[in-house]
Amino acid sequence: MAAARAAGVDALLVTFAPDVRYLTGFTGSSGAVALAGGKAVLFTDGRYTAQAKAEATGMRVVVGQGSAAVQAVGWLAKAGVVRCGFDAAQTTVTALEAMKKAVPAKQRRGFLAPLEGPVAKLREVKDADEIAQMRRAAALGCRLFGELLEYLEPGAVEAEVALALEVKARLAGAEGMSFETIVASGARSSLPHGRASAAKLPRRGFVVLDFGVVLGGYCSDMTRTVHLGRAGRRERAVYDSVLEAQAAALAAVRPGTACGDVDEAARAVLRRAGLDKAFSHSTGHGVGLEIHEGPRIAAKQTQPLQPGMVITIEPGVYLEGEFGIRIEDTAVVTETGCEVLTRASRKQWMEL
Amino acid sequence: MAAARAAGVDALLVTFAPDVRYLTGFTGSSGAVALAGGKAVLFTDGRYTAQAKAEATGMRVVVGQGSAAVQAVGWLAKAGVVRCGFDAAQTTVTALEAMKKAVPAKQRRGFLAPLEGPVAKLREVKDADEIAQMRRAAALGCRLFGELLEYLEPGAVEAEVALALEVKARLAGAEGMSFETIVASGARSSLPHGRASAAKLPRRGFVVLDFGVVLGGYCSDMTRTVHLGRAGRRERAVYDSVLEAQAAALAAVRPGTACGDVDEAARAVLRRAGLDKAFSHSTGHGVGLEIHEGPRIAAKQTQPLQPGMVITIEPGVYLEGEFGIRIEDTAVVTETGCEVLTRASRKQWMEL
Repeated sequence: MAAARAAGVDALLVTFAPDVRYLTGFTGSSGAVALAGGKAVLFTDGRYTAQAKAEATGMRVVVGQGSAAVQAVGWLAKAGVVRCGFDAAQTTVTALEAMKKAVPAKQRRGFLAPLEGPVAKLREVKDADEIAQMRRAAALGCRLFGELLEYLEPGAVEAEVALALEVKARLAGAEGMSFETIVASGARSSLPHGRASAAKLPRRGFVVLDFGVVLGGYCSDMTRTVHLGRAGRRERAVYDSVLEAQAAALAAVRPGTACGDVDEAARAVLRRAGLDKAFSHSTGHGVGLEIHEGPRIAAKQTQPLQPGMVITIEPGVYLEGEFGIRIEDTAVVTETGCEVLTRASRKQWMEL
Repeated sequence: MAAARAAGVDALLVTFAPDVRYLTGFTGSSGAVALAGGKAVLFTDGRYTAQAKAEATGMRVVVGQGSAAVQAVGWLAKAGVVRCGFDAAQTTVTALEAMKKAVPAKQRRGFLAPLEGPVAKLREVKDADEIAQMRRAAALGCRLFGELLEYLEPGAVEAEVALALEVKARLAGAEGMSFETIVASGARSSLPHGRASAAKLPRRGFVVLDFGVVLGGYCSDMTRTVHLGRAGRRERAVYDSVLEAQAAALAAVRPGTACGDVDEAARAVLRRAGLDKAFSHSTGHGVGLEIHEGPRIAAKQTQPLQPGMVITIEPGVYLEGEFGIRIEDTAVVTETGCEVLTRASRKQWMEL
C-alpha cells in the first residue's frame, strides 16, 4: 500500500471492522489483521472462533483473549517488526495507549505510526466483483421503491411505510438497511434527516424517501421525492431545480474531475435559482461496505475522481416549515463518465 | 462530575452520540456538547438545525460548519477555558489532532485533557425515569418472545423467525432492535454470535434466541434457549447447568459486590459441571442507551455494583459442532439485591 510505504512502515495493523472484512471476509465485531512480511494473520476472541475460521479462509486465524488489536500488536512486536502503521482515523486515544503497552519498552519508541485510513483509501476504488455486488444492491433498492409506490397514500403512517419497505427488503434477501430509513412527508420533508415518524402522509404534499439495502455486505443508497396530490407552481419549480442540479452534478462526474467541482456543478444550478442557501449539505459521498466512505463530494474537495469509485449525487433543497426535496442516485465512475446504478426514474413527479 | 473535577479541568467536551443524547436529548449523528461555567451548549451542523432545536430544549444550540467537536473546542478556547476534558475512549487519534488545531497556539499546551468515559460512568447508574423506560423495553421484549413461540417449528427459516420478531417489535412501537437478532438453531446454536441465517430449524435440537428492542432510546436484552422435539439426557443436563449458573449469578447481584464475583458465581457452577471451558465469554454487561455499556460483568473486574445499575446476566455453554445454550436476563441492581426486568420464564425447556 502506497500510504504504508510512504510512511516507512514494515507492518500494518488493521482493526476497523469494514476494513477487516474487506481484507479477510471476517464479519465479526472483534477482529484485527496484522500484515507483515507478505503474510496476514487475523486475531479475534473466543466468541468468534468458528465464524472466523469459516469466513477468513486461507489465512491464519489466532483466537486469544481480550482486544484483538492488542493481541495483534503483541504478535507483531514479537515478530521483530520495527514500525507498524495503524489507522489514526479509526483508533481511539484509549485504544492506542493499550496497544502501546503491548510493545516491549525497548521496541516501543516509534513502533506505532499513525496513518490516515490506508485501507479506507484502497476501498474507495471498487473492483469488478464489488461493482457487480453494488449493482445488485442498487437494483434491489429500485425494485423495492417501485413496489413501495402503492403504499404512498394520504393517511399512511411514515413509520409503517418504512417498515413495509424493510420487510420487503429482508424477504428479498437483504441483510438489513444501509441506514435508518427516511420517510419524511409534508413539512417534515424539510428535515434533511427526517426519520420515519408517526406522522401521516398528507393529502397534498411532498414525501422524501431515502433508503438503502445491504446485500452481500454492500450498501445501496437512493432518494426519491414524490408529491401526493396536485402540486403548486412553486413546488414544481423547486423540484425542477433540484432535478437540474442533480443532472448537472452527474454530468460532471468523470475520472480526473475534482470532487469539489462535482459539488459546485450542483450548487451552481441552485445558486442561479436562488436556492443555494437552502442546500445545507454536501452533494454526495462514497458508498460501499459502509454507507458513508470516501471520497467526499463536497465544496473545496480537491481529490480527483477515479474509475471504480462509487459515489452518491444527492442535492436537496430544504425550506424550513414548508417542504424539502432531495434526489439521490448512486453512480460508479467509468473511464469516460459515470454509470448510474439506481435506475429508478428520477422524474417521479407524481400527483398520486 | 467527579472524574472531571479530579482531572482538574474547568470544562468538558462531550462528543459520543449516546452521551450527547443523555445530556441534551439530541439524537442526531453529529453533535458536541461544551460544558463550562455551569452552562451547556450544543453544537451541530446544518443538517440538524430544526431537529436540534426541537430535541435539545432549554439550551443554547449553535449550528456551524464541519465537525461539531472542532466547533465546540474553538468556542471553549475563546471562552477562556484553561483545561478541557475529553473522552479518550470515544475520540480517535485523528479527531484529537483536529481538535488541537482549533485551540490558539498560546492556549494549546495542556488544553485537552484525556478522561476515560466521564459521561459513560454517569450513565452506568440509571435514575427512576430511565429504569421505568427500561422496564417498558424489557416487558415488550418478553411479550414478543411469547408471541414468537408459535413461529418456532421444524423447517422455519432462522432469518424469517427473526424478521417476524422485528416486524412485531416495530408495530409495537420499538424504534428498532438493540442489535442484530440472533436465531441460531441446531449445531449453529454453538456459535455464541450466530446471526439468523437461511438455515431451517431442526426437527430436534436447540434454538438460541437473543434479541432486544429499542424503546424510547433504551435497549432491552434477553436470551432464551428452547428445544424442539424430545431432548436427550446430555442436552437436559447442560441446560440445567446453564440455568443453575445463571441463577447463581443473579443471586450474587447486590450493591457492593464486585462485578468479577458475579462472573465467578456463574463460572463456578459450570466449573463443577466440567463445562467452564465451553463458557467462552463474560457473564454480562451494563445496558442502557447502548446495548453494551459499563459495568463489565467479567472475571477479575473489581468494580462494585451500585443501586440503579442495569446489567445482563448471560452465561452460556458452547459445544462446537454439537449445540449451544445461553440464558440471559436484564436486571436492575436494587438496595438489597436485584430485580429481573425480563420476566419471561427461564425454564423454557420446551419440547415443542
